[in-house]
Amino acid sequence: MNIAVIGVGLIGGSLAISLKENGFADKIIGVGRTEKSMDKALALGLIDEKTDLNTAVDQSDLVILAVPMSAYDKLLPEILDQVNDKQVVIEVGSTKAAFLKKIATHKNRHRFVATHPMAGTEYSGPEAAIDGLFDEKCCVLCDTEESDADAVALVERMYKSLNMKLVYLNSEAHDTHAAYVSHISHISSFALALTVLEKEKEEDRIFELASGGFASTVRLAKSSPAMWAPIFMENRYNVLDVLYEMIFQLKKMKQMLIDHDEDGFYELIEKANEIKKIIK
Amino acid sequence: MNIAVIGVGLIGGSLAISLKENGFADKIIGVGRTEKSMDKALALGLIDEKTDLNTAVDQSDLVILAVPMSAYDKLLPEILDQVNDKQVVIEVGSTKAAFLKKIATHKNRHRFVATHPMAGTEYSGPEAAIDGLFDEKCCVLCDTEESDADAVALVERMYKSLNMKLVYLNSEAHDTHAAYVSHISHISSFALALTVLEKEKEEDRIFELASGGFASTVRLAKSSPAMWAPIFMENRYNVLDVLYEMIFQLKKMKQMLIDHDEDGFYELIEKANEIKKIIK
Repeated sequence: MNIAVIGVGLIGGSLAISLKENGFADKIIGVGRTEKSMDKALALGLIDEKTDLNTAVDQSDLVILAVPMSAYDKLLPEILDQVNDKQVVIEVGSTKAAFLKKIATHKNRHRFVATHPMAGTEYSGPEAAIDGLFDEKCCVLCDTEESDADAVALVERMYKSLNMKLVYLNSEAHDTHAAYVSHISHISSFALALTVLEKEKEEDRIFELASGGFASTVRLAKSSPAMWAPIFMENRYNVLDVLYEMIFQLKKMKQMLIDHDEDGFYELIEKANEIKKIIK
Repeated sequence: MNIAVIGVGLIGGSLAISLKENGFADKIIGVGRTEKSMDKALALGLIDEKTDLNTAVDQSDLVILAVPMSAYDKLLPEILDQVNDKQVVIEVGSTKAAFLKKIATHKNRHRFVATHPMAGTEYSGPEAAIDGLFDEKCCVLCDTEESDADAVALVERMYKSLNMKLVYLNSEAHDTHAAYVSHISHISSFALALTVLEKEKEEDRIFELASGGFASTVRLAKSSPAMWAPIFMENRYNVLDVLYEMIFQLKKMKQMLIDHDEDGFYELIEKANEIKKIIK
């Protein structure tokens, strides 16, 4: 099968290399925003050839859109306009409901499947792509009743070939859960980085004193603005909802510090410890 | 050399096993709050014998106090009362200025050295102790001018035997930097755990959808309340200062979401990315 990967970064590149490695794809055709990144993807062996969007779509059985969500408005209708009833189009973005509304009435909506392979690292670009990124991770398929059965079946085969666990959610529920679990982690990490950079002017000190705990908590703050700013905007009602809660929790801690309420803080930490039941 | 370890948990136990392994200690005498934890420490080979506080101090060249900071008021004067001019006492807590003021005029203050080996995990108790925890990490020695030169020299030899990098700070500066780098990471992680536990009532969903990013950001939220509630209280002025900044950063993000200010959010993330320069 020929697969077009539009956007050969962390997610697109990792899908490309993994689907080549496991034999699901016979040929990967790459499309990117710059010649430079495409040449890098070729040199890294992520893609077999590079071309323009229309040629890539024309030559492919499956089209994977893996660009920042801010580029969906331009690219997604253009791709859908072009596909026939044997081709399948998917995207791999982190929020669903808003853009799905925009393509709801497109004549080829039924050849499209919205997916969210929940894996990643804090790095971006073709160099960040790794084989095995998706192994044993979870992939959400959204609103599959809007897609043709054969299109859904193809996508299921593809993600299962990567050893992913499939979860089915409607797009609204997906966006809520993604805000609660993934998006707020990034918000929290960005805020931590900004806080420490603001308060700790002595960079040498951060470097010396930061132990593994800080590095782990702040890791996601290295994530790409091109990827994350559009995600937060797309999902802003859900992100706002969970962000209000986070600010509320921090204010509660602040008040306990002001009140010197050690018992209250102890109880709060004990409650936070319940996350152990969920994250091993 | 005989070393008494008072409190054989994550830090005390890891020091015990590491100093035994590298030959710095000939004998480790353990003291704990419960018989059960001491028996566990013996069974795990962390300590050579268990006894009561006074006997342990009496038989030791070096006393390591590694208990939650809430127990300092009771234990530290009792230990200092008992030591002679050849013995050395250290503690390994996460904040310094407040308790150091309390013992400033103790007749044996000069035999005492305040230290902060900046290493740890989110686990606690004797089972959490591991050899090699301190390797290549940083250890802060505070207000060393208040301690006898031979006492400081012994402590330097001990931490260097564990391959730690030594940093010298006054206690006020230590507490500020510790708040900025270590304490706020824990606050942020506890708040994230509480937020997600509050919003995400469907625990199965968290479990399914949480990827590596969430696990990494929320890891410190598993940390022990017995250890951390007293630290936050001891260092509450510095922690409050940095907590105000964190709430300010989150409110800024909130406003940008409300305003749909994607460019602003992009710039904020770009600024947060500067943490890359510091944390590799």
